[in-house]
Formats: sequence, structure tokens, C-alpha cells
Amino acid sequence: MSAGATVPDRLSQIAVEDMTNIALGGAFLGTGGGGDPYIGKLLAEQALRQHGPVDVLSVDELDDDDLIVPVAMMGAPTVMLEKLPRGDEANAALDALEKVLGKKARAVFCIEAGGLNSTIPVAVAATAGLPIVDGDGMGRAFPELQMVSMSLHDISACPMVMADEKGNSIVLNTVDNLSTEKFARVITVEMGGAGLIALYPMTGAEAKKATLRDSMSLINAIGIIIQSEQVANRNPAQRLCEDLDGVRLFEGRVMDVDRRTEGGFARGSCAIQGLGADTGRSLTLEFQNEFLLAKTSSGNPLAMTPDLICLLDLETGQPITTEQMRYGFRVIVFGLPCNSQWRSDKGLELVGPRYFGYDLDYQPINELNLSG
Amino acid sequence: MSAGATVPDRLSQIAVEDMTNIALGGAFLGTGGGGDPYIGKLLAEQALRQHGPVDVLSVDELDDDDLIVPVAMMGAPTVMLEKLPRGDEANAALDALEKVLGKKARAVFCIEAGGLNSTIPVAVAATAGLPIVDGDGMGRAFPELQMVSMSLHDISACPMVMADEKGNSIVLNTVDNLSTEKFARVITVEMGGAGLIALYPMTGAEAKKATLRDSMSLINAIGIIIQSEQVANRNPAQRLCEDLDGVRLFEGRVMDVDRRTEGGFARGSCAIQGLGADTGRSLTLEFQNEFLLAKTSSGNPLAMTPDLICLLDLETGQPITTEQMRYGFRVIVFGLPCNSQWRSDKGLELVGPRYFGYDLDYQPINELNLSG
Repeated sequence: MSAGATVPDRLSQIAVEDMTNIALGGAFLGTGGGGDPYIGKLLAEQALRQHGPVDVLSVDELDDDDLIVPVAMMGAPTVMLEKLPRGDEANAALDALEKVLGKKARAVFCIEAGGLNSTIPVAVAATAGLPIVDGDGMGRAFPELQMVSMSLHDISACPMVMADEKGNSIVLNTVDNLSTEKFARVITVEMGGAGLIALYPMTGAEAKKATLRDSMSLINAIGIIIQSEQVANRNPAQRLCEDLDGVRLFEGRVMDVDRRTEGGFARGSCAIQGLGADTGRSLTLEFQNEFLLAKTSSGNPLAMTPDLICLLDLETGQPITTEQMRYGFRVIVFGLPCNSQWRSDKGLELVGPRYFGYDLDYQPINELNLSG
Repeated sequence: MSAGATVPDRLSQIAVEDMTNIALGGAFLGTGGGGDPYIGKLLAEQALRQHGPVDVLSVDELDDDDLIVPVAMMGAPTVMLEKLPRGDEANAALDALEKVLGKKARAVFCIEAGGLNSTIPVAVAATAGLPIVDGDGMGRAFPELQMVSMSLHDISACPMVMADEKGNSIVLNTVDNLSTEKFARVITVEMGGAGLIALYPMTGAEAKKATLRDSMSLINAIGIIIQSEQVANRNPAQRLCEDLDGVRLFEGRVMDVDRRTEGGFARGSCAIQGLGADTGRSLTLEFQNEFLLAKTSSGNPLAMTPDLICLLDLETGQPITTEQMRYGFRVIVFGLPCNSQWRSDKGLELVGPRYFGYDLDYQPINELNLSG
């Protein structure tokens, strides 16, 4: 299986006991972003205990005119760690969007893979008594709202609803998805750095065409690998690498983290000094909520957006998010090929290195690491 | 007549030829803010030519369950001078708000007195085929959304719709009117510094209780005075002062203007060196869109918010807005008593000097200028 490919074990239902795997797998695919899984896992477990398990639907099981609603938390992950959701804001956003559309949702959807944004939708689905669709809009996490496969298929992010823990609710109707991002970002900052959102309302027909498939199953499978390897006292890195067509990029110790919360994002870079086979070398990771570029001390890129750059703890194999990184952490850096939709011209315009200000043409991770 | 008192000549209809008076009177009561009248006057004249005159209703003519909708332009006046409205955004905001409420407006309303915000609503009313109510929410202009008489009567600013010239439209539902201001302000900045808004939807019953009366008639009467005095080659200052219970504060030449556009506002101060009877003295005006404080060089206040501080050209009697002020202008500075609602504890909490960061207890202009 690869990050965007078919997964052998289809997940048909999510129960309380699945949330550890889903939080782990989501955090892994979140490539450093998508939010810390801790809060989302707690919210989902509480909702599943209260309302029972959530069914997972393949997009093929949807009727063409069903309404599908992605829900998510938006904001700087650094803020999300300290500004906890009250718990019902995401459902309030879903309810408000249903009211705007005059139609009830058939299923909930994850806009991205990530610790928080693969778990919050489970909590929303459980609370609303709805199934969740086995898919997502990124196959990973990205920092901005317009960076979803739905944008590649001209589906509007609007109407979009934003809600905060104080009870404020805002409905956006913008002329394009980049404008949605810009307005939603300043509103998120005014909400204190994070808010709950419901957006990209889609029909079943649109979801079949425009979403990335099987993401919940993949997330669950990754979580199972990480957990089972941890239980067997093995670092999951090797098996993840093999099973996900991944490239082991680097192993080392975090020497410096330069992180600032600006414009509603956690931006910065992280310097890692090599250990083991990488002794004597060093690696720099650049991030904007998510890891976007891995390069050597001589400036050679080893992996770049939209390919996935994942950080695992060297001992435990636990995924590490950009806001958790600290001096002294011993880590493995991984690269995974992105979904093929992101490698199209339109995809690279949306999420390629130049969008984020790097003066680089996109090179697929496999070409950059032929001997890796 | 005084700035908040009953006006002898009731305005019953607004035609194209009334717009010069209304723009002049609005700019005068705008106390330096409320937007430059030029654009609003053109928009209103065009709409009146196309759709015919607009009826002016007293609030007493409204049914208790009529829907009344204030419309306005929001943003830094410095920006409004250069970022022109397309012309239909305010009507788009009104239409969107009607849709949210599921009810048609009975009449349009001015949220404040000002060059732009006393004229744009006339254009909206003409285009929508609706009357305009003879009243407003401030009896002057203030820089922030929550600073309206409706806030003193616990009427919510929401649902509020914001629209820009690109076609973006945003609906706010916030927990209080100060939150409305904060969200709307950052959205205004993201809209490029200015946007068109529809907010404070009210019933007729609420409008009777919570609005300031006869403002359109007062604005028209002030415009007539300025115009007729100009035609007679007299400076209107003397007559305005007498008719409006005003205080002539200062006469001089603008020596320095310190103005910056920050956080969506035009903020700064203006130094005026005395001429005529004021030779040898100097005055400083502080502003945030509107003039908020007039003080002597020794720091003694001569007038402060919520009382009105108005600036007129010394030769022509033309009202001067904060964004028009330039080095060398020869001006008369006027003070007018505010509507008595603003002098209550709740009123001063909302718009008194301390809200704007001045370490001053409010003193009414008449007490500050006993010999004036």
C-alpha cells in the first residue's frame, strides 16, 4: 500500500478502541501538522462512548445527491494545544451549515489527515448520529484551506461556517477558495488562533469524483502498524517504510527549533544533527504547520511538498508534530510519495514548493533519493 | 435646534437635488469621519435619477413588526477615498441579510451621520425601492460598530452581512456587539480596507425605542444652512454655531498632520496654530476616523468624545474630514453637544474618552467652555 493507494483492510466501523490507532495514523500522515491528536482523540472517545460506534462509508455507497460535509479545526497547532475546544463547536458549525443549505448532511468527511482533523470528525459524526466517509481531501495535512483535491475539481469551499468556543458563528461566501482561506485565516486569528469549521459541502457525486479514497482505512492501518511494532518493542520505521513505499531520509538529534506563530500559522525550521549512519551530516526541515521541505546542510533537497515528510521518535516510533518538536529529540525523518493528483500541474500550482516561496521546481521524492 | 433635538423642517422625500445638502450636512455631523461625501453623493444621485426619489419615514410611521435594516460602508476613510465601491455591494448586503432573516425590509436606515454613511443608504433605498427612516444610530459618526444607540438598548448587530466589490459575502452571528466589531474589522482589512455592510436588523418597535430621531431632517437642515451661507458669501460657522447650540473652539492653520492607517482605522493627530483671536495659541485634535479630543498646547481639553468636534474650512465653511486634512488648511473648529443618550453611564462606557484610551473623565463641552 502507498499513501494514496488502495488499502487491504477496509475499516467499516469506528469504535472507542479504534481511536488510538486512528489518532496515531492521522498524526503520522499529518506530516507534522493536522493538530496534536490528544484533544481530538479524547473528544472522539467521549462521543463514541456516549453515542456508540460510527459507520465508515465508501464514497461508492453514497447516493449522488447526498450532502457530504467536511468538518475540521482550523488554526495554528501551537494555539490548539492550549486553547481547547469546548466540544460542541464543530457540531454547531455542521448544524449552521445544514441550516444555510436547507438540507441535512448524509455523512461527515475529513478535510485532511492529521491527529486532530482525523479525530474531530469522528466525534462530530458520533454526536450527530452520522457515518463518516472513508476518504479525505489531502491524503496528508496541508496548512491552507484551498489545498484540497476538491479545489482541483472546482468545488467551492463555500458556504463555509466557522464557530468558536464562545458561541460566535460566521458564514463565508467567497469568490474562490483562496479568498476563503484568506478571510477564514484572519477570522481564526480573531477567534484566538483556532476555530471549528464546516466547509466544502459536496454532493455524493462530487465526492466520488473529487476526494481521495480510503483515507480512514489507511490511517487505521498505519496506526495498527505503529502500535503493533511498539508492542513488539520494534521501531515501526522499517515496516512503515516498506509498506508505504517510503524513503528513510535521516536519523538524528534535534539541535535547534526556530518556531513562530504568525498570521495564524506555526512557521519555522528545525535543524537535525545526524546519528548512526548519518553521523557527521545535518538536515534542515522547513515548516508552515506541516513539514514542507527537507534539505541537507549544503542545501540539497531530499524531499519537498507535496510529498510527505514525517517525523518519528527514534525510540518509540511516535509521530512528532511541528509544535511538539524540542531540542534534544532523537528522530527518524521519513519521506512518502504524495497522491498522484498533487503531481499534476494544477496540483503543484496549489501545493508545490513555489507556492510556499521556495525557489525550487518540484522533484518527486523517489527521483531525489534514487539510491535511498 | 441642537444636534440631537427636534428639527423644525421635516424632510419627507429625498430627490436628486437634495443630495448636495445631505452630503454637506452628513459630512458636518460626521465630525471628521463617516467617509468622504463625494462617492456616496454620486452613487445616491445616480440611483435617484434611475429609480426616482426616496420617501423619508418618521419611526412613528413604522409598524411594530416592520423590518428596518441599516446599511453602511465600513473601513478606514483613507482607504475609501481610493477603493471605490462598485455600486451594488450595499444592496447585495441588504439582499443577503433579507435572505438570512427570511423577511423583506420595510425601510433602510443610516447607522451613523457622515458624508458617506448618510448618502450610501439613500442609494440603497432608491435602488431597492424602499423608504429611508428619519433617524440614525449615533447622531454623529463614531469609529466602531458597537457605538450605536441600539447597543444601549441591547439590540444585536447580528445577523450582519458584509460584502465587497469582488463579490465576497460574509454573515456574522456573534455573542455581543463588541465581538461583531472585532470580527468585522479584520474582515474589512482583508477586504482591502473597506466593505459594505447591513446589520442591526430591527423591528419597527425596536427602532422607535432605540434610534436617534430626525437625523435625516437635521442633516438636510445643516446642509441648507451651509449652502445658503456659502451662496451669500458668508462663512456658515456663525449661523451653525447659533442654530446648533455649538461652541466655537478655535480658528487657525493646520501645521502638522500625523496620520496612519492601522488595524482598519485612520488614526492620528493634527496640530493647529491659532489665527485671528487665537493668534499665539495652538490646538491639537486627536482622531480615530472621527475627531475625539480637542486640547490646548497646555493639555487642557476643550471638547471630548462623545461631544462632536467639527472642522470647517475658514473661507468656504466646507466640512473637512480627517483624511482630507493637509498642512496649510485654514480652519474653524467647532464643538457641539452630543445626544443626551451618550452622556448616560452606559453611553460613556461605550463612547467616552476612556474607551479610546484617554485618561480623562468626560466633561460636557458646555462646562469646559463656560465663557465660550
